[in-house]
Amino acid sequence: MPHFKVQPDPAVLPRHKSSSTKRRKRPALGIIGGGQLARMMAQSGVSLGCDVIVLDPDPNAPAAAAATRSIHKAIRDLDALDELARSVDVVALENEFIDATILSELEVRGHCVLPGSETMRRVQDKLFQKNTIERAGLPLPPFASVSSRADVIAAGWRFGWPIVLKQRRDGYDGRGNATIRSAAEVDAAWARLDGARHPLYVEAFCPFVRELAVAITIAHDGSVARYPLVETVQQDHICHSVVAPAEVPEDVARRAGDVALRAVQAVGAAGTFAVELFLCEGGEVMVNEIAPRVHNSGHYTIDACECSQFENHIRALMGWPLGSTAMRAPAAAMVNLLGRGEGSGAPLGVAACLAVPEARLHLYGKSRTARGRKMGHVTATGATPEEALRAASLAASFIQFGDPS
Amino acid sequence: MPHFKVQPDPAVLPRHKSSSTKRRKRPALGIIGGGQLARMMAQSGVSLGCDVIVLDPDPNAPAAAAATRSIHKAIRDLDALDELARSVDVVALENEFIDATILSELEVRGHCVLPGSETMRRVQDKLFQKNTIERAGLPLPPFASVSSRADVIAAGWRFGWPIVLKQRRDGYDGRGNATIRSAAEVDAAWARLDGARHPLYVEAFCPFVRELAVAITIAHDGSVARYPLVETVQQDHICHSVVAPAEVPEDVARRAGDVALRAVQAVGAAGTFAVELFLCEGGEVMVNEIAPRVHNSGHYTIDACECSQFENHIRALMGWPLGSTAMRAPAAAMVNLLGRGEGSGAPLGVAACLAVPEARLHLYGKSRTARGRKMGHVTATGATPEEALRAASLAASFIQFGDPS
Repeated sequence: MPHFKVQPDPAVLPRHKSSSTKRRKRPALGIIGGGQLARMMAQSGVSLGCDVIVLDPDPNAPAAAAATRSIHKAIRDLDALDELARSVDVVALENEFIDATILSELEVRGHCVLPGSETMRRVQDKLFQKNTIERAGLPLPPFASVSSRADVIAAGWRFGWPIVLKQRRDGYDGRGNATIRSAAEVDAAWARLDGARHPLYVEAFCPFVRELAVAITIAHDGSVARYPLVETVQQDHICHSVVAPAEVPEDVARRAGDVALRAVQAVGAAGTFAVELFLCEGGEVMVNEIAPRVHNSGHYTIDACECSQFENHIRALMGWPLGSTAMRAPAAAMVNLLGRGEGSGAPLGVAACLAVPEARLHLYGKSRTARGRKMGHVTATGATPEEALRAASLAASFIQFGDPS
Repeated sequence: MPHFKVQPDPAVLPRHKSSSTKRRKRPALGIIGGGQLARMMAQSGVSLGCDVIVLDPDPNAPAAAAATRSIHKAIRDLDALDELARSVDVVALENEFIDATILSELEVRGHCVLPGSETMRRVQDKLFQKNTIERAGLPLPPFASVSSRADVIAAGWRFGWPIVLKQRRDGYDGRGNATIRSAAEVDAAWARLDGARHPLYVEAFCPFVRELAVAITIAHDGSVARYPLVETVQQDHICHSVVAPAEVPEDVARRAGDVALRAVQAVGAAGTFAVELFLCEGGEVMVNEIAPRVHNSGHYTIDACECSQFENHIRALMGWPLGSTAMRAPAAAMVNLLGRGEGSGAPLGVAACLAVPEARLHLYGKSRTARGRKMGHVTATGATPEEALRAASLAASFIQFGDPS
């Protein structure tokens, strides 16, 4: 897909430092958080000649092995964040859990954090995110803010059951969500999500037929690199597999790409963002969620696209031209490697997996396994999505982390 | 190219530890030396979930950023080598400069080093290497051992001028070579290569029309993964560019591949080795040199092949099945990024380079630049070798390291 430019929203114009004010002899990137997303960002950054410094309290965090060095402190420790920011040209984030006010404090101190505090404010609170998407005129399931069980019940009657009760902050992989099928289930859901302590909101349940996603990188000058539309399959609320390109009618793909681009514009994206979409029965595409970062649905790009979502994220943050999102093969598929139970971080079955010729194995180096924990992924390319998915699934089937409990 | 097996030479059967005797919870790889070859090996190892420990005295060595951790000690320090070996399952080498007797001592202590001491003995002394290649019945330029200037003069008259006087040990990138065009030039060449202190030998000058190379990975069970034949172009004795596949008649390609495979068998290769070849005017293919390691001529494989020379090296050392050497595009080209003069290790022109859509940029993160120093490389794929080389050359032309002196 050709590059083109968008007019950045001035309210959220990323505050890039000009090269001359702060550029060190070697470009330096900081990353808050040291999980697998940071690890893969670090690998791209290092290949492009950057120093990459990761902030994470765990010395064995996945990104520690891939980064130039790590700062072993808490990610919400303002002094540690300041130490990180002072050592680099730009600070990246691997999750949306750092409060926007902390990012704002770093900006006030003159540091460059991307995405910035205003964008994070619009995205990290899912209710604010929904408001932003709605104000941009984009299609999304009905939603409502709720402050009590009574509000939830009222929303259920208004939207129709079932509804989904969600935490506004800090949810992921299905945590912080509760599907409610009737008024009778509201109390239990409210208690599970601890509505007294956590701000919640409600969405109408969207009877989607397929789930789609697209990664988009926005450069500081507004250039856009949009990745192929993919289809994602979740199991137990966790991403199981991704297929690229999504096999949907061309008009659906076009609308989905357009909706996604407008969504990331609306929040003032900088670098790579991902947009998750619902495809509904009537063919309507609705925005599900925006992730202000590289995303599981884009891991296939490492092996299947000219320039990965991770590398393009680095290019965008460093003020470099974006790379091509063209696919290297007609189709690709990624299958997640999830822990089956508790155990050490070392997998069984690597040899069998690697014996599958198309298998591109990525292990995250986590010290411990837990049930449902993302421990790695396998990507395969192929002549068709089915072929790619078959190979990736076969290869992934050999890998086992942990003992099923 | 399909995989097939060769019978390993029992004299040099790599001494792999069985998984049960020494396999840690996570596979662990050690690398002696921390240059760019170790860096790229480390990146592959980390992606495959290995702990990678690098031994190099320089804390800013290129591989330090990519490895899990580094040991900052001298690479010929036997205690340091022992410390490295004890911490990992297998030790890899990124150059042929560690004397085989040191590797033998590590083996005696029960460690697993690959390639092993016997292979290294046959390869690191170029005269022994030539003898091994000749004994295997492979074509190579005439050569002779020399102990004096008189021996050199005699060889010149026997082989015909010019001849090439070479150090038997520790030469690279043209260092340790002297081309001698007449008996009158022998004294100066002998003095330059310090024949009194360094063992030397002589080769007939090979009037090659093209230089070729091929990377081959040999697994512990004898499986072979052979990469495409490439053409290499040297400038001032340093690799300038590589094009894959080499545009040669099919029978030449077949003979070259066969000669290369027999050459690596003859030395008892384990992991990825590279064979440099001469293509002579009459169409004859001769062995130039064997590198017992991953090699500059194989860097293009990272972007252009299903499984890179680095990843296949890791797979071989870890006892895992080898990956596919198939190319992802019809053609590829790599251009080296060499220092133009002294300076810091930070390049100019990265943005312009990255603006070339086909450019895949790899920077090695070296702290200092020197004239002719390998600072990185650019790879491009394309529909034809010319197209790929054009794109890679263009992208590379924008990058500048150091000030020309």
